Amino acid sequence: MTVPEADRRVFKQARSGIVTLLTDFGIDDYFVGAMKGVILSRFAQAVLVDITHNIPPHDICAAAFTLFAAHRNFPPGTIHVAVVDPGVGSDRRPVIVETEDHLFVGPDNGLFSPVLSLHPRAKVRHVTNSAYFLPNVSATFHGRDIFAPVAAALAQGTAPEFMGPTIQNPVLLQPNAWDPKADFAPVGSVIHIDRFGNCVTSFAWERVQKFSGGRSIHLRLKDFEITKRLPYYENATLEPDQPFVIVGSSGFLEISIWSGSAARVLKVGVGETVHLEVV
Amino acid sequence: MTVPEADRRVFKQARSGIVTLLTDFGIDDYFVGAMKGVILSRFAQAVLVDITHNIPPHDICAAAFTLFAAHRNFPPGTIHVAVVDPGVGSDRRPVIVETEDHLFVGPDNGLFSPVLSLHPRAKVRHVTNSAYFLPNVSATFHGRDIFAPVAAALAQGTAPEFMGPTIQNPVLLQPNAWDPKADFAPVGSVIHIDRFGNCVTSFAWERVQKFSGGRSIHLRLKDFEITKRLPYYENATLEPDQPFVIVGSSGFLEISIWSGSAARVLKVGVGETVHLEVV
Amino acid sequence: MTVPEADRRVFKQARSGIVTLLTDFGIDDYFVGAMKGVILSRFAQAVLVDITHNIPPHDICAAAFTLFAAHRNFPPGTIHVAVVDPGVGSDRRPVIVETEDHLFVGPDNGLFSPVLSLHPRAKVRHVTNSAYFLPNVSATFHGRDIFAPVAAALAQGTAPEFMGPTIQNPVLLQPNAWDPKADFAPVGSVIHIDRFGNCVTSFAWERVQKFSGGRSIHLRLKDFEITKRLPYYENATLEPDQPFVIVGSSGFLEISIWSGSAARVLKVGVGETVHLEVV
Repeated sequence: MTVPEADRRVFKQARSGIVTLLTDFGIDDYFVGAMKGVILSRFAQAVLVDITHNIPPHDICAAAFTLFAAHRNFPPGTIHVAVVDPGVGSDRRPVIVETEDHLFVGPDNGLFSPVLSLHPRAKVRHVTNSAYFLPNVSATFHGRDIFAPVAAALAQGTAPEFMGPTIQNPVLLQPNAWDPKADFAPVGSVIHIDRFGNCVTSFAWERVQKFSGGRSIHLRLKDFEITKRLPYYENATLEPDQPFVIVGSSGFLEISIWSGSAARVLKVGVGETVHLEVV
Repeated sequence: MTVPEADRRVFKQARSGIVTLLTDFGIDDYFVGAMKGVILSRFAQAVLVDITHNIPPHDICAAAFTLFAAHRNFPPGTIHVAVVDPGVGSDRRPVIVETEDHLFVGPDNGLFSPVLSLHPRAKVRHVTNSAYFLPNVSATFHGRDIFAPVAAALAQGTAPEFMGPTIQNPVLLQPNAWDPKADFAPVGSVIHIDRFGNCVTSFAWERVQKFSGGRSIHLRLKDFEITKRLPYYENATLEPDQPFVIVGSSGFLEISIWSGSAARVLKVGVGETVHLEVV
Repeated sequence: MTVPEADRRVFKQARSGIVTLLTDFGIDDYFVGAMKGVILSRFAQAVLVDITHNIPPHDICAAAFTLFAAHRNFPPGTIHVAVVDPGVGSDRRPVIVETEDHLFVGPDNGLFSPVLSLHPRAKVRHVTNSAYFLPNVSATFHGRDIFAPVAAALAQGTAPEFMGPTIQNPVLLQPNAWDPKADFAPVGSVIHIDRFGNCVTSFAWERVQKFSGGRSIHLRLKDFEITKRLPYYENATLEPDQPFVIVGSSGFLEISIWSGSAARVLKVGVGETVHLEVV
């Protein structure tokens, strides 16, 4: 359980001590508790924050969106561990993503794709130095045996350089709906449905504004033409169950219904195509 | 992200550093994580404690009960952030409630009604000083953009005076079932159903004792006359599925069934009328 | 709320400051928040970690497995509070279990049975000193009124000796599937089903290896003969929905199905008999 002495050198970047956790482990089993035990065993001062553990099992896209939306509010020097890992035990690589402010740890399967788009200068590193792992790595629970102890080492200031070499070919989601370098396309999709039934689309408001040049926009999904745009949730000017477009808190256009679930009323799921029209 | 220097003056009250969170955001989305990131960005030493995030969406009464029942066990100087906020983005006021021991932050919509009844000398303040908010306040997520940073400032010792003026007309729940100043009425209701199916009534045991003068009490709800009162959960003297009355851990009378859900067996929901009779 | 001065003596064992919580309280009610408030009121430096609060109501076996699987990853000096307590308010004893490294607090109802098997030299203590409880102990919520304040006192270094006498007859689960001192029996059962539908059996891999002497093993449950054993989750050599055996992350043999729920496909629940054959 000791980390090589030589690696406890000058911190490359100040750390906040915060380690966030995002998994598809649910909260009924011992999995999350075991990960936290490992992190605190390795770095007793870690401040642990759950993002969510209720990502649908193996849903890398949902995890990628949630991590993307949540990470931006954390202070510089935060470590984000994300484990949605259908390939655990196979030869998929464990990776560290280094952006200007944050470090991310998890499997190389597309989970960090939107973060990489947002931070084009980010480095990706293949974690190969098993000195940072638990002594006996199981084949089924790398969250506990690899990602947790690596996160603890990063949180206490170990430089990522000690953990493995940089790589140029991280796995990306296809199509990478969040890629800010791609041309803006007026065809997008529903990328997330939240607890309130709001349908988050792939249209980032910042990019929509540039594309539309200030003109009005409509969204079309299935047979619905959604022409109403509201600045916040209110029903003053709405018909019952009338859908409207709103700029959501994650910066994307969302389709909502006042005191109801847009997803349920419109019978929409993640992946549904959405068209954007400038009128 | 900086707080005006002038405001970092003498603490009015020692702070525990604890910030509790109670919302209807669920635990599947990035919402709670984003709030915690903001609080820790503003006050790195904050100790974050979740009360619950599973208040039914927009259910202000359920939130008010849970906050009321939970807050009393926290040490003086604790900040409680409560965000069940159907009016987010409208002109409903963000408020701070100051009791002798605790500070509460959230929307002015009745959420703090029982706390205000319990603490008749509490002050309520309209939070107007946007210096404490995030720089860009969204129209849909004041939990992250207003309440979280205000809570962080309070937790690190900023005096509420700096945040806005006191108000005399906070929104209260109608009828305010918990108002200890009101005359005791023998007609109440089910105010909460817990995970085990226990039906928490609006009858505070302290007040029932005064009203009954030590005589026995019966509860009536729907067609059921509940005459059995037990000191704790046990089945020695019960028929199968026989409901009984017990003083619950929150100080209210509860209707329970041994190893079963009283709510399910009696087909009772929140809001059901309950009559109390002294016999 | 004060602890007798005389008891704040030399720490018997260094404490990690960590208090883990495992209950069947769910996460919708105020129960867990109230326990945390009590712990932080008594010991402000406590580091609180949730194992889970979603143990099925009153399911002592499920709690025992989860506690057993989770506790091993926590640092020495950690306090584990476990409250699955159908006998709350009756005369079932509150106990402290002391192993070499950890302290456990909860009701004496079998919850600590696997931990006691793993640590045959563990001491069990009947907690009788009410000086450590909340001033008014309710009949229905000992998690808040007894176990939380006792855990806080232990976490801050109070020696268990001050809390009550050792006992020799703790309640054990019957049959104690995890008893490493018992002879290995080739008939076991499904002791847990996880979020992914993996069926955890009572066969500890360490003991299976000794029993089988390196030969192959098959598992039989219901009409299924499971002959395939895989080192990790992968589908290269599997028929659709073919079950396989894998050494799970808790050290027990598990029955799994690639990208599916073995529990659902095989229609298996907790308690199902499993036969192990050496071939």
